[in-house]
Amino acid sequence: MIYFDNASTTKPYEEVISEVADGMRMYFANPSSIHKMGVKCEKRLDKSRESISNIINCGKNEVFFTSGGSEGNNLILKGLLKPGNHLITTRFEHHSVLKVSEELEKYGVKVTYLDLDNKGQISLEQLTKAICKDTVLVSIMHVNNEVGSIQDIKSIAATIRSCSKRAKFHVDAVQSFGKITIDVKDMDIDLLTASGHKIHGPNGVGFCYIKFGLNLNSIIKGGSQEKGLRAGTENIAGVIGMEKAARIVSENRDKNFNYVLKLKEYMISRLKEIDGSHINSPVDEMFSPYILNVSFEGIRAEVLLHLLEEEDVYVATGSACTSKLSARSGSYVLKAMGLNNKYIEGAIRFSFSEDNKIEEVDKVIEILKQSLTFLRRIKR
Amino acid sequence: MIYFDNASTTKPYEEVISEVADGMRMYFANPSSIHKMGVKCEKRLDKSRESISNIINCGKNEVFFTSGGSEGNNLILKGLLKPGNHLITTRFEHHSVLKVSEELEKYGVKVTYLDLDNKGQISLEQLTKAICKDTVLVSIMHVNNEVGSIQDIKSIAATIRSCSKRAKFHVDAVQSFGKITIDVKDMDIDLLTASGHKIHGPNGVGFCYIKFGLNLNSIIKGGSQEKGLRAGTENIAGVIGMEKAARIVSENRDKNFNYVLKLKEYMISRLKEIDGSHINSPVDEMFSPYILNVSFEGIRAEVLLHLLEEEDVYVATGSACTSKLSARSGSYVLKAMGLNNKYIEGAIRFSFSEDNKIEEVDKVIEILKQSLTFLRRIKR
Repeated sequence: MIYFDNASTTKPYEEVISEVADGMRMYFANPSSIHKMGVKCEKRLDKSRESISNIINCGKNEVFFTSGGSEGNNLILKGLLKPGNHLITTRFEHHSVLKVSEELEKYGVKVTYLDLDNKGQISLEQLTKAICKDTVLVSIMHVNNEVGSIQDIKSIAATIRSCSKRAKFHVDAVQSFGKITIDVKDMDIDLLTASGHKIHGPNGVGFCYIKFGLNLNSIIKGGSQEKGLRAGTENIAGVIGMEKAARIVSENRDKNFNYVLKLKEYMISRLKEIDGSHINSPVDEMFSPYILNVSFEGIRAEVLLHLLEEEDVYVATGSACTSKLSARSGSYVLKAMGLNNKYIEGAIRFSFSEDNKIEEVDKVIEILKQSLTFLRRIKR
Repeated sequence: MIYFDNASTTKPYEEVISEVADGMRMYFANPSSIHKMGVKCEKRLDKSRESISNIINCGKNEVFFTSGGSEGNNLILKGLLKPGNHLITTRFEHHSVLKVSEELEKYGVKVTYLDLDNKGQISLEQLTKAICKDTVLVSIMHVNNEVGSIQDIKSIAATIRSCSKRAKFHVDAVQSFGKITIDVKDMDIDLLTASGHKIHGPNGVGFCYIKFGLNLNSIIKGGSQEKGLRAGTENIAGVIGMEKAARIVSENRDKNFNYVLKLKEYMISRLKEIDGSHINSPVDEMFSPYILNVSFEGIRAEVLLHLLEEEDVYVATGSACTSKLSARSGSYVLKAMGLNNKYIEGAIRFSFSEDNKIEEVDKVIEILKQSLTFLRRIKR
């Protein structure tokens, strides 16, 4: 089995699985209970909070646990924006930002969608022009989930600060957390979203960083968990598992990054052997090494995906959250980057983890060659 | 260790812990991915959906997975109610219903809060009078989390149907699911909320039953998971664990019920040995055997709770979600039931599971006697 779909979700580490199991055994009480068993659970949660806050360089009380990235993005956008407010985002955000933005528009929030260039970069000039007195939030993803383009978060923050005292800066870091250094102080970020299952952690758990002093409305009301921002008995075993995964990936961040970069470089070099392959996410400072998006001319990506799975190779045509949509009408991310239609319909996302091997790349190249020969022959 | 705080949360079964661990290993792919590994995960999710639907007698496609009971209650109330609509609920619902009701009031939803009698029962007469042409939802909990009072769901449903064609009936079944038979067809329920961690399942996972044909707005938007009702990569291992727990408790429902009933009966009989103890939830068809709420006259419940925990006995002063609030100003549930103040401040909730033993009851009675003697002596 060759799993090149790590941007979709990752295989949990065995250490994470044991932490989750131990967490379920040892910390099963309710952290809101006022007895010792509850207090022990609350302290354990706090330990995870602290551990995660250290990784992104924020205060312990600025970390809020959620059920994952989609909830985090919903919470931050809906929690901050009121009718009449202005939101700036981009055309190629994850749907948990884009669909919420569309909903907020109906509700009276003004939204500007920034364009992307063919490298998946926003223009700071367009951002500057877009910021106005009503701008309350700028929400931009760190690493795009389909092509891996990396935004220059520090420059974006500086641009926002120079134009507005009011606008807050939210970074959807679901694809970057644990892979690329995040320092919310140095990068001058106000709000951030991350998820457990993208870093070999459990599904169903994530966190938001929310800068001290910012008050958000909650989307799940009830008990006073997470300082009243997120009601519901805490998923303590999930949090412990996510913390474990976050610590492992962070401790190995540079090593993993360089290793995966070599995989991507090698795969790109070998893709040159394949006619009509077109790299949408080159090796470049502006792209994450974890994602390699390639178009195969004259091929429908979904058909190729299914041929690959017959050989036990797993890839994606786009984001898992919009995979059925992409299969029908092409990736909105690639469209937003102005990619030619002939490349959009044949685009495959290979996404790596440090578990992948050079030999797997070799194997995939051979299978791609056979599959493409077959597909191009039956097409003729 | 004697754990009599099972209404707060339960210890996960070992079988559940292994299912979660295996689930993380075997079903780590993204159920939204269009390749075989994704499809395998989607099928596994569907198996859980079917298994749970069989337990409550609904269709497989009427089960929607959530991150737990609080999210479920928020989703149903916010998903159904629009400004101008009328909601009927009770004064002693869980805060994930009450706080949302208060929020909806600000947003233009009219809300009627039904009274409870001293047995924690609503009046069908008051319900009948409250229903009007704008009534869109009646939301009533099956078993109250602090006193265990059981509402007559079938009669409530019949009353709603006789008064309105429009009003839907939502049952917060977090404390009853797996303990008391629920048949949504027979009971004529339109919407229902349940949670994993109250039935020896994992935290951070729950489900809603939503009758076919009902369209709700989602509170977490983005991907098209859960038919677009709940965006976010599914917590598949959590769902598998919850399914396992649900099957175990359901298969043993009657046996567990009768066993726990004996524990409660025995504890009540022994509490007679303690002066100034007052049973707020007798053994009676109108009360769940899983919850025994007792007031100790002249005692502050929180102080007693801490004395008990010194002896490794764990109980609650009320709902975990509002425990800090109850400790300060007394339980809103007991107030709603019109309990005398002298009983409210000394109220302790003992909540059982089938893991508890008669010997534990004996031990707790002895510790209670000592603790109360001590507390009453220092008070004099």
